[in-house]
Amino acid sequence: MRYDRNILIDWKDKLRVVMVETRNPLNIGAAARAMANFGFARLRAVNPYDVAFREARSAVGAAPLLQKAEDYATLAEAIADCRLVVGTTSIGHRGLQHPMRRLEYGARMIKRAMAEAPVALLFGSEKFGLSNDQLSHCHWLMRIPTVDAGLSMNLGQAVALCLYELARDPKAGKAKPGKIARAKAGEVEQVTVLLMDALQQSGYINPKTAASTEEKVRRLVRRLNIAGRDAPVLLGMLRQILWKLGKKRDAQS
Amino acid sequence: MRYDRNILIDWKDKLRVVMVETRNPLNIGAAARAMANFGFARLRAVNPYDVAFREARSAVGAAPLLQKAEDYATLAEAIADCRLVVGTTSIGHRGLQHPMRRLEYGARMIKRAMAEAPVALLFGSEKFGLSNDQLSHCHWLMRIPTVDAGLSMNLGQAVALCLYELARDPKAGKAKPGKIARAKAGEVEQVTVLLMDALQQSGYINPKTAASTEEKVRRLVRRLNIAGRDAPVLLGMLRQILWKLGKKRDAQS
Repeated sequence: MRYDRNILIDWKDKLRVVMVETRNPLNIGAAARAMANFGFARLRAVNPYDVAFREARSAVGAAPLLQKAEDYATLAEAIADCRLVVGTTSIGHRGLQHPMRRLEYGARMIKRAMAEAPVALLFGSEKFGLSNDQLSHCHWLMRIPTVDAGLSMNLGQAVALCLYELARDPKAGKAKPGKIARAKAGEVEQVTVLLMDALQQSGYINPKTAASTEEKVRRLVRRLNIAGRDAPVLLGMLRQILWKLGKKRDAQS
Repeated sequence: MRYDRNILIDWKDKLRVVMVETRNPLNIGAAARAMANFGFARLRAVNPYDVAFREARSAVGAAPLLQKAEDYATLAEAIADCRLVVGTTSIGHRGLQHPMRRLEYGARMIKRAMAEAPVALLFGSEKFGLSNDQLSHCHWLMRIPTVDAGLSMNLGQAVALCLYELARDPKAGKAKPGKIARAKAGEVEQVTVLLMDALQQSGYINPKTAASTEEKVRRLVRRLNIAGRDAPVLLGMLRQILWKLGKKRDAQS
């Protein structure tokens, strides 16, 4: 378990999240928080607004990651050690000079590349995204599959989505999680019997149709699909109701 | 195309994103923006801070969606028309009374349920998440698979991740995107010939090893994997260099 976790962290250590000319310190903080959430640690900032970057370093919860963040004057320096450089965008880029890959597919290619060498994942500024000059450093672009081409994504959300897709476990979509244990047939029948008793004492059951009513009640109780731990609770409720009904009957007689 | 899009929107119209007691207006705005990004439209707010909600309604880019957002006094009212109610969390809930499903799997179940009837997806407040009382309205919980149990997720990012996973196309992870057309062998050989010329005229080639150098250059040029549209550009560059080399040679002779 611990060993697996370390392997995972080594693998994730190959990714450099590169925030290029980020304007809003909240977005650098949000990127750092998402990185911590999904186990990535290498944050780089290219020419951020000085104040913004310093403010972000004090963001709640992400401080250690931000304190280790590296600051670069140029994009070329920030990506120099990477074998693959991928730019991100949520809107289709005009005058497409680069292959464009959807996040689902692009993340698979990035993971494969990360097995070999460092990979840089670039996020442009809030207002303009990556400039053409910045894009020319990229091997290809990764597109977040949003529906509305007119509305760009929030930068912090875009970082979170890319990291989630990288950390995503395709097998987890198929794995069945632990189910709640159902009550045993004996317990379910006990509930049925006590409920029938309560209905009888309440005058709900017409003696002429009692047999068919019992069948209906039995089927209804099965459909409730009672959990194992709920059976004793339901039995307790019914016993209490029966006790009260009995008292009322005694009082009336 | 247009028809497919409408079907898609109908399907997505079954989801109600329910923000429960959200404190920060930026987070309601971020949720609305992520909904617009991924094609969901039904936003509900339960007992939000009044001012927060009103401020969020004026958030850039998400105004139409926020203006249609419905405001409820209680959670029970906000989810009354839903057949399935799912709570979200990024940290494992203590005293687990509910089945907990990972996002990858939970989203599949939600999509299946949305084919039949409205589904509510609940997001708790920034500080406390969903309370035990709020959780008791849920059929099950969905967990965003973060690595660090100690650090909760940013609310806006959590909403974006859940909607992305719902909108995610599993087939897109396998589909190969359009590739850039490679140059034809004839063009690649032209580049090789001109490069050999330039190397010859520059004195790079030792006459004794010229044959093996030519082979090496030919292999190197093939490894460059030149794109079709780049071949004429490279040929233009080489021709210019050859012209200049020729002029220099003429000047020297």
